[in-house]
Amino acid sequence: MQNHGSLIYEGKAKRVFTSQSSPDEVFIEFKNSATAFNALKKAEFHDKGRLNCQISASLFEVLETHGIPTHYLGVVSDTWMAAQNVQIIPLEIVIRNIATGSLCKETPIKAGTELNPALLDIYYKDDDLGDPLITEARLDKLGLLTNDQRSDVEDLARRVNKCLKEFFNQIDLTLVDFKLEFGITNRRKLVVADEISPDTCRLWDQRTSDLQERILDKDRFRQGLDHVMEAYGEVFKRVQGAYSKPRNYK
Amino acid sequence: MQNHGSLIYEGKAKRVFTSQSSPDEVFIEFKNSATAFNALKKAEFHDKGRLNCQISASLFEVLETHGIPTHYLGVVSDTWMAAQNVQIIPLEIVIRNIATGSLCKETPIKAGTELNPALLDIYYKDDDLGDPLITEARLDKLGLLTNDQRSDVEDLARRVNKCLKEFFNQIDLTLVDFKLEFGITNRRKLVVADEISPDTCRLWDQRTSDLQERILDKDRFRQGLDHVMEAYGEVFKRVQGAYSKPRNYK
Repeated sequence: MQNHGSLIYEGKAKRVFTSQSSPDEVFIEFKNSATAFNALKKAEFHDKGRLNCQISASLFEVLETHGIPTHYLGVVSDTWMAAQNVQIIPLEIVIRNIATGSLCKETPIKAGTELNPALLDIYYKDDDLGDPLITEARLDKLGLLTNDQRSDVEDLARRVNKCLKEFFNQIDLTLVDFKLEFGITNRRKLVVADEISPDTCRLWDQRTSDLQERILDKDRFRQGLDHVMEAYGEVFKRVQGAYSKPRNYK
Repeated sequence: MQNHGSLIYEGKAKRVFTSQSSPDEVFIEFKNSATAFNALKKAEFHDKGRLNCQISASLFEVLETHGIPTHYLGVVSDTWMAAQNVQIIPLEIVIRNIATGSLCKETPIKAGTELNPALLDIYYKDDDLGDPLITEARLDKLGLLTNDQRSDVEDLARRVNKCLKEFFNQIDLTLVDFKLEFGITNRRKLVVADEISPDTCRLWDQRTSDLQERILDKDRFRQGLDHVMEAYGEVFKRVQGAYSKPRNYK
């Protein structure tokens, strides 16, 4: 179905392949696997790959319309996406609009506290170390980013937040927090990479006030709640309702 | 022996009492208790209170001669110190000159790496949360310090490091890293508070290259090594050799 070459990288939720037609492009396959707590908890969910691929594609297109550079090129099939070949910066940038999750275990900030301006946390992507939170001073010591690059990453992440918060709000979803990854293209351009989906965003349904029912993201899986894929499906339905189907690549 | 009033605070290694003569002063008793790993590991060491009290007193006097403000007033007895009454800022400022300990579990920085300029880590003092590492962005959200105060704390911590590194180097000790706490006096002055001792500093003996023998600090206790108090005693001997006995208060 897609003209992909060899496997470059296999992560917990995606596989990345070379493209046979261009060294500047890759093909990304979204898998049905789900993991949580640094892969201590694992499961397979039918249809997860398709839902995350299509939601991500639409959200990347939303960012594009706001002038935010991403690695996204188009969808190739239900579960495959074409993207620019990037070198991933091994950092997870987490933007938090409402305090929940690990933040409330690591600070005295109470769950539910609105964070305005949003809190930006940076984690070092390393499974062996458990993706630790990293301070700016520690990041400096690692030498992963120049000061300019860090500032660009932070600016882009805040622009993504503004854009997605508004988009989700229109479809009655609250963007609680989300994780971004960034990459550098072969032409040395910084772009938003990876995926943007209920695996990487906390989304609360504004149409219910039930504290469990409103969870439409991977927290359902983390917390052992039922209807995980129904929640992802609801996000998919609303995103495509607001945005229409993502474009096909070539 | 000391004119102390009522107990204000009891920590893992010290007790703090009011002074009957002034609301601006307190008396601090250094205990023989040792704890590690957020108090999961506990022990009593004969003479620890005296050694830490006297070492701290001398080191505070060293800082004073370099114009660095501290809470220290003088020693009252072997295990008691008089100090200014301060409101402790609930942060632990850790300055690292050589990478070791938790830093190497939380980043890919290899143990033994020289950190120049020194790395400054800030931890939020909260036993229930396990004294978590805190980023500048999270610190902002907690509202514990103004930007000016944070900058003053960091400047003071770096001045303390420069001063202690040189002092210890003269007595053949390498200051690997150390923890500082800061307080605000009744006159709103920021000062170095708490203690500075082998409980709060990692000190390596330059007179031996043996990786275990050189450890002259609480790591001996953390790692289950023997001769813990002999190590503290050696630090005491060298500090007083270089500095002489600390002054008595009143």
